[in-house]
Amino acid sequence: MSADRTDVLAINQAFYDAFSTGDLQKMESVWARNAPVACAHPGAPLLVGRDVVLESWESILSAKERPQIMCIEPQPHLLDQTAYVTCYEQLGGSSGSILLATNIFTREDGGWRIVHHHAGPTPLRPRSTSSSASDQILH
Amino acid sequence: MSADRTDVLAINQAFYDAFSTGDLQKMESVWARNAPVACAHPGAPLLVGRDVVLESWESILSAKERPQIMCIEPQPHLLDQTAYVTCYEQLGGSSGSILLATNIFTREDGGWRIVHHHAGPTPLRPRSTSSSASDQILH
Repeated sequence: MSADRTDVLAINQAFYDAFSTGDLQKMESVWARNAPVACAHPGAPLLVGRDVVLESWESILSAKERPQIMCIEPQPHLLDQTAYVTCYEQLGGSSGSILLATNIFTREDGGWRIVHHHAGPTPLRPRSTSSSASDQILH
Repeated sequence: MSADRTDVLAINQAFYDAFSTGDLQKMESVWARNAPVACAHPGAPLLVGRDVVLESWESILSAKERPQIMCIEPQPHLLDQTAYVTCYEQLGGSSGSILLATNIFTREDGGWRIVHHHAGPTPLRPRSTSSSASDQILH
């Protein structure tokens, strides 16, 4: 695996580590400071701008009922100075719901930082998917 | 508006034009040929790879019940050689459902091409959103 793939998977995991442990300081450190930031939490309006996005994370991470979350099957896709990771999110343990996420990263100050997170429901569990399941597409 | 913002909004609109008119040739032309391609249609498994993604579009665009779709409030976010657009999708006319989409673009062969499309349900209509609506977040 290339160094970039390893580094992008590491920052993606750092994002989920901050999420799962409720570590706001770590969460703030993984988001870009200069690049344009946005975030689409499931069931919520689109948020644009670092301050607004980090306010939402402060609210989520400090909530009494912060859910368990685990990143499953992250796939990095490299685009030179930018990369995106597609992955599933397991919420609330093995019996919980599954989300599908797109996370976009860019190089900043010598490292990778997240610029956009979009998570939404998916009816299918990882590894139960079929690439030719186009008849299930709701579009 | 910078040339890049204009160009990114134009390729984003070309993607939705191909979608709304059922133009498979145009749809094929807007997707990247060399960069890593993926697509997450709502309610469907993640698709990875240009061939698989374009097969899904062929299925969608040739369907008898292809939905009306309109892109609303696209916002371009520029990252040098890459950009992402966040927007809402109005399906089935003004009384239809609203999706939230993330579209990622990269420069290729002198133009912008789409590399990733992720659309999913959102409970809120455009312009009805509030940046501080963190209590609605389901994460």
